[in-house]
Amino acid sequence: MAEHSPYELLNRKRRGGPLDPREIEFFVDGYTRGAIPDYQMSALLMAIAINGMTADEMATLTQAMLKSGEQWHLRDSYDFIADKHSTGGVGDKVSLILSPWVAACDVKIGMLSGRGLGHTGGTLDKLEAIPRFNARLSREEFERCVADANCVISTSTDGIAPADKKIYALRDVTGTVESLPLITASIMSKKLAMGASGLILDVKTGSGAFMRIYQDSKALAQSLIAAAAGSGTRVEALITDMDRPLGVAAGNANEVIETIECLKGKGPADVMEVTEAQAIRTLVMSRKYDEASAKRALDEALSSGRALEYGRKWIAAQGGDPAICDDYSLLPQPTNTIEVKAPQSGFITHIDTYLAGMFTVDLGAGRKKADDVIDYAAGVMFDRKTGDAVNAGDVIARIQLGHAKKDHEELKARFLGVVKFGEEPPPPRPMVHEHLT
Amino acid sequence: MAEHSPYELLNRKRRGGPLDPREIEFFVDGYTRGAIPDYQMSALLMAIAINGMTADEMATLTQAMLKSGEQWHLRDSYDFIADKHSTGGVGDKVSLILSPWVAACDVKIGMLSGRGLGHTGGTLDKLEAIPRFNARLSREEFERCVADANCVISTSTDGIAPADKKIYALRDVTGTVESLPLITASIMSKKLAMGASGLILDVKTGSGAFMRIYQDSKALAQSLIAAAAGSGTRVEALITDMDRPLGVAAGNANEVIETIECLKGKGPADVMEVTEAQAIRTLVMSRKYDEASAKRALDEALSSGRALEYGRKWIAAQGGDPAICDDYSLLPQPTNTIEVKAPQSGFITHIDTYLAGMFTVDLGAGRKKADDVIDYAAGVMFDRKTGDAVNAGDVIARIQLGHAKKDHEELKARFLGVVKFGEEPPPPRPMVHEHLT
Repeated sequence: MAEHSPYELLNRKRRGGPLDPREIEFFVDGYTRGAIPDYQMSALLMAIAINGMTADEMATLTQAMLKSGEQWHLRDSYDFIADKHSTGGVGDKVSLILSPWVAACDVKIGMLSGRGLGHTGGTLDKLEAIPRFNARLSREEFERCVADANCVISTSTDGIAPADKKIYALRDVTGTVESLPLITASIMSKKLAMGASGLILDVKTGSGAFMRIYQDSKALAQSLIAAAAGSGTRVEALITDMDRPLGVAAGNANEVIETIECLKGKGPADVMEVTEAQAIRTLVMSRKYDEASAKRALDEALSSGRALEYGRKWIAAQGGDPAICDDYSLLPQPTNTIEVKAPQSGFITHIDTYLAGMFTVDLGAGRKKADDVIDYAAGVMFDRKTGDAVNAGDVIARIQLGHAKKDHEELKARFLGVVKFGEEPPPPRPMVHEHLT
Repeated sequence: MAEHSPYELLNRKRRGGPLDPREIEFFVDGYTRGAIPDYQMSALLMAIAINGMTADEMATLTQAMLKSGEQWHLRDSYDFIADKHSTGGVGDKVSLILSPWVAACDVKIGMLSGRGLGHTGGTLDKLEAIPRFNARLSREEFERCVADANCVISTSTDGIAPADKKIYALRDVTGTVESLPLITASIMSKKLAMGASGLILDVKTGSGAFMRIYQDSKALAQSLIAAAAGSGTRVEALITDMDRPLGVAAGNANEVIETIECLKGKGPADVMEVTEAQAIRTLVMSRKYDEASAKRALDEALSSGRALEYGRKWIAAQGGDPAICDDYSLLPQPTNTIEVKAPQSGFITHIDTYLAGMFTVDLGAGRKKADDVIDYAAGVMFDRKTGDAVNAGDVIARIQLGHAKKDHEELKARFLGVVKFGEEPPPPRPMVHEHLT
């Protein structure tokens, strides 16, 4: 591929001209091997971030990145295996609930997931709040979990999409994180390298989402679907609400507890609605169910205790202690809990969910830098949420402290700063906005 | 300046937001010192190349680049000293003629100039065709030449605008050469670091110019003038024609000969017109002349032989042999000369001057890469140019070969490929299009 000149490609992309598939492959392959230096890749990333990419360019970029490493082709090993991805939010424990719930309906599901960075929590961080839970599986261990429990969630191995790891690290320091084609290629290269039969995308929208504006969220969903064209993995997306924290708990150990409560049929309505919508689509994609039979099977899995049973099997399969399902005191415990009370009567009209997420991160529940250490016991319980009526003095939230010492009054004041009160309730928002295929 | 984050600046510039002066200084200073890595600077350069810069940002970038090294403040050492810059062309020997001509009118002029790269020739390369001519002067040697001959042309020293050298090298490999603000800052940082009293910019337009389109040339001229605002150096620009080779000779030794002929009052009309226009502006800027007295002084300098006398003084001051003015055989001589004849009668309607320049480069007269070696004797003599009437069989050009062996028939065919013939003469083009201040 020596005939391609990085200089010429960069000039063309700067002017907004298209790159052809072999040129994109040349650049990604050369960068991964170290033949193309950081400074040329960062110039290309900036040109892409500003000038965008056509759907064809984006699909090629995704393919080039996934071809940089292992391809598991899991769909060839199973009749059907699902995958699921969320663009991230605050209190988003959907993957934890969905996996054993779908597994209990005899549909396999496996995910290579990520850790949290910034205001959103990470699925793996939450799971690692469970004592001895092993989220770093080899491919063999990954498949053994699927065999044991019908479900598995593990960190991506070093062999999956190394180009993405290298490019992501560069985007992180060159101001090119916010770019639809680059976000798309990063997400989809890892998903398509695993190669599930079907993939459900949970694209969040609202003040706690990566894309706050509805049209941006929809564009991301469409872009993610387009990038999978011809890959062999069927992809559907649900655009779901992240304008308020999802469920009651935001943190790690507290979200595991909420997950178990959901599997016991006692979950908050908003979490259950979002999770069920995705579970139904997952079951329907497997072609074992239609919408109605999927809903019945999911209801039955909860009421019979099969969903919780698969939760236990799954935790055990990944080395964790399933006894946490019966004894929450086996999970990391807060050192202190601070009640936050409503300063006035009326309604909660808005919680800035991005700021609520950053508040949780600052407690120790998340990371600002990649090497920050998680404090699993830290978090927030949102006892009242947007739209709820409150009387002055009602406890609206409980701040759970972990190891770090904090000034309680300062925390309360800061928490109240992200909550707005008013005399009228805000207009309702649906939890599931749109289904895209 | 530790409070600035390269990441945040890059994000802002990606979105098209403005950078403030301290942020630009932080980035340029950090990059020059090695504290900011290539990959962050290349991302910034790409963002600037695509999103542009405001006039204020561009002036700040220019200032930050010039402050990265020595500032000569020459205007403080002389009553008046001029500088001149050309954006480059084919056969552009204007600086060589202008310097001693202006010097002969008792106005000092000094330039820190560059070498040729791509289709345009370099002033220093032409001068180095003169045996023993020293174009690498220290500041002391530079000022001694001004004292001896009223004029000097030297290469930029390592101490002048080191940020520009480092940034230019990075632009060259990241597809960010074509960018109005980056071109402006690169040119003007070096010019303002020398700090003449007045600067004449010769901005070329047409098929042999860096900016072919008139509006682009004018935008560059305006941008260069704007970047000098508040610098203490007065700047004027002339937009001059480069849609046909300038004068008869394109090469190095042959352009030195043409320069001497011009100083003897026997130069081609087009070169003399462009050079005189700039010489008049230079003399007027010195405030020793108005337009009419400048023109009279220049005429007198030619007819009296004073212009040629200053040519001799200047060559001697820079270590070269002034005897070349009387004996052109002291200059490098072509090993062979090939005549190119008109294949038909009529008019030359166009010479693609970019391609004519690249033809000359391929003979050895210029560089495709920075480390190519110049063959001073190689070049082209354009005996007939655009607009001239020709009869079939007339010699329209002479190709002068240096050391390299070439296929004569192939050279003739290729040369004729850049010349268009027709039955009607093309519309005339003025040599000097516009004067901007």
